[in-house]
Amino acid sequence: MALYVHKYGGTSMGSTERIKNVAMRVAKWHDAGYQVVVVPSAMSGETNRLIGLAKEIMAQPDPRELDMIASTGEQVSIGLLSMALLALGKQAVSYTGWQVPIKTDSAFTKARIQSIDDAKVRRDLDAGKIVIIAGFQGVDDNGNIATLGRGGSDTSAVAVAAALKAQECLIYTDVDGVYTTDPRVVSEARRLKTVTFEEMLEMASLGSKVLQIRSVEFAGNYRVPTRVLSSLTDPLIALEEEKNSGTLISFEEDTHMEQAVISGIAFNRDEAKITVLGVPDKPGIAYQILGPVADANIEVDMIIQNQSVEGKTDFTFTVPRGEYAKSMDVLDQHVKAHIGAGSISGDTKVSKVSVVGVGMRSHVGIASKMFRTLSEEGINILMISTSEIKISVLIDEKYMELAVRALHKAFGLENSEQ
Amino acid sequence: MALYVHKYGGTSMGSTERIKNVAMRVAKWHDAGYQVVVVPSAMSGETNRLIGLAKEIMAQPDPRELDMIASTGEQVSIGLLSMALLALGKQAVSYTGWQVPIKTDSAFTKARIQSIDDAKVRRDLDAGKIVIIAGFQGVDDNGNIATLGRGGSDTSAVAVAAALKAQECLIYTDVDGVYTTDPRVVSEARRLKTVTFEEMLEMASLGSKVLQIRSVEFAGNYRVPTRVLSSLTDPLIALEEEKNSGTLISFEEDTHMEQAVISGIAFNRDEAKITVLGVPDKPGIAYQILGPVADANIEVDMIIQNQSVEGKTDFTFTVPRGEYAKSMDVLDQHVKAHIGAGSISGDTKVSKVSVVGVGMRSHVGIASKMFRTLSEEGINILMISTSEIKISVLIDEKYMELAVRALHKAFGLENSEQ
Repeated sequence: MALYVHKYGGTSMGSTERIKNVAMRVAKWHDAGYQVVVVPSAMSGETNRLIGLAKEIMAQPDPRELDMIASTGEQVSIGLLSMALLALGKQAVSYTGWQVPIKTDSAFTKARIQSIDDAKVRRDLDAGKIVIIAGFQGVDDNGNIATLGRGGSDTSAVAVAAALKAQECLIYTDVDGVYTTDPRVVSEARRLKTVTFEEMLEMASLGSKVLQIRSVEFAGNYRVPTRVLSSLTDPLIALEEEKNSGTLISFEEDTHMEQAVISGIAFNRDEAKITVLGVPDKPGIAYQILGPVADANIEVDMIIQNQSVEGKTDFTFTVPRGEYAKSMDVLDQHVKAHIGAGSISGDTKVSKVSVVGVGMRSHVGIASKMFRTLSEEGINILMISTSEIKISVLIDEKYMELAVRALHKAFGLENSEQ
Repeated sequence: MALYVHKYGGTSMGSTERIKNVAMRVAKWHDAGYQVVVVPSAMSGETNRLIGLAKEIMAQPDPRELDMIASTGEQVSIGLLSMALLALGKQAVSYTGWQVPIKTDSAFTKARIQSIDDAKVRRDLDAGKIVIIAGFQGVDDNGNIATLGRGGSDTSAVAVAAALKAQECLIYTDVDGVYTTDPRVVSEARRLKTVTFEEMLEMASLGSKVLQIRSVEFAGNYRVPTRVLSSLTDPLIALEEEKNSGTLISFEEDTHMEQAVISGIAFNRDEAKITVLGVPDKPGIAYQILGPVADANIEVDMIIQNQSVEGKTDFTFTVPRGEYAKSMDVLDQHVKAHIGAGSISGDTKVSKVSVVGVGMRSHVGIASKMFRTLSEEGINILMISTSEIKISVLIDEKYMELAVRALHKAFGLENSEQ
């Protein structure tokens, strides 16, 4: 009997009415003969409410105690969903993270899953029960509750699907799949029927909010077929239709042989660029500049070091826009005088645009087509970075939407069929 | 180092400000060199909110799943209180019921505590930590969360105090102790400095809302000195003053040798009387009348069977007023014709008044003094029931307050010193 893991986000669990809808959808799968494990998030707003209470007590809440509190949101959800299934005449049982148990390390508020014991869950499934498991949480070796951090329920669901060798992990959410780009920017954006794990990873790290990046990594490591699909459809739509809806993150690259070279255009408005000018071009200079920035817990993304002229060079990198002021402080206080830099300049009005696709590996000319397209639109490229399956450029933020639309068209994304 | 268990109710934990006050009070005890374990309730209103959500899903919530949900209220409380203590620079750690563990049976929503493992708590106390334990909850042998039912946090606190052989269990609440009677009825009502376990048990079962009756039983069985005191005082009042405040439930009867015969006057407005008239006086008739009532889960309190006349008798008993209509239905449908009773009459305008005191055992004349007092006020006695340490009478409810005041005065309760 095939097993499916369903994951429902906070919006889908946002009220008792919506929870009843989730139960109807889950019951439909069970009625069709599938084993089903459900991993729900907390009701929308609940985790924020709990963290708010904690912050009223302690501006920087103690991580262990914060996890004690924050984990209750999912505990309420699983009990309510289990009852909603019982009310439909189904056999159902809910488990917290520690009851499964889902073992994690002790990094409270950002714990990592180490193992999942499937014995109890298998026993219940084999007895015909639907099993509801709290997302976002686990238990460490000392019996402390630990949470996986924001969005951790996606990771829980994929990890449970891996442990149980599920047919698919279905991530029900308020979008109906992964698109070639943001439909709010490009009205011709098209939903992808499939996307490879690596493409999804790039898209997630490039700003797509569809899936938490750690869950994509987990899906990749354990080769869990994961589908992103809508929780806003009628819960009783035909099962075959639902099974083929959304976007499947797949692990079979050969199925992509005939398909488009590029899967999508990702973008991120939240960028800032910093340039350290007149840096002596000596070994170790990159570390001397970026070390203090990393020490301040600021994540650096793109990095360029110019060709040096007369023993001096310019060093440019990007940081999240919210970290710009802090980054400039760090450079002023700990770097500038120390390395004998000339001056430091910055720009917070920049955005990153990326083309992503596994097909890029076997096709040449993607970069040149991208640069030509931007050039034809009169868009200046400030920085470039590449990986095997993506090319990212930093541009003036005022051109961002134009760039996305132009690239979407240039790579024929509105037409291509998968 | 003496150990104290503190219990704080939902009102005391009602907001983050109040939780900070609780933390200040607890820290004061710890500063004075005591080991402290704290058992808080859920924030006021929270348990009702959770049960309300459950009932939106399922009119009769599944007990296991309801406990999954309802237990989260205390889990939030312990995390917040632990943080409030950490914010004061104290070492503190919180534990849910399953983390201690507090083992219970599997009677979800009304579970009974079976054992408490003190190893983890002792280790933390010895390391100088304040330990916060969730009230109201435990875990059964199969790892399911089970709650103790409404007011169960009192029972948790007393049970933890018993397991740890605490010096005293301090029940902080919104009244400042146990009174000779309700001060809203008799303005001269006086706070008792001590009360015996048995008196407290009678008072709890006679309608005093100060302590949950199961917690009093627990205190009695394990001889846990338990003090009821106010959580509304300044949290930083002198420790010696606080230690002697409230009412101590004691287990040393000899300290009572010199004290008043009667400790207090209890009363309960919530009574209804039912009389089955013209019942054939045969063996087994009491069972034939009360069996169906008990089967309907209705608790019967006082019972009288009159002297029979010509083979017929009258049978009278009391039930909680809210169960009156249901009781009459049961009697009409299942009893009346079956036993050949003449008719059934009832009265919902009756109240019970009781005098309570361990001194009664060694003093005669308490009953006659009680009856004479009521007679002098022109109050007719409808029913009488007695135990070793209490005498209860059922009277017309319109005389209840008059009866309480007259008895309070007749037994000199406003003057007596303990």
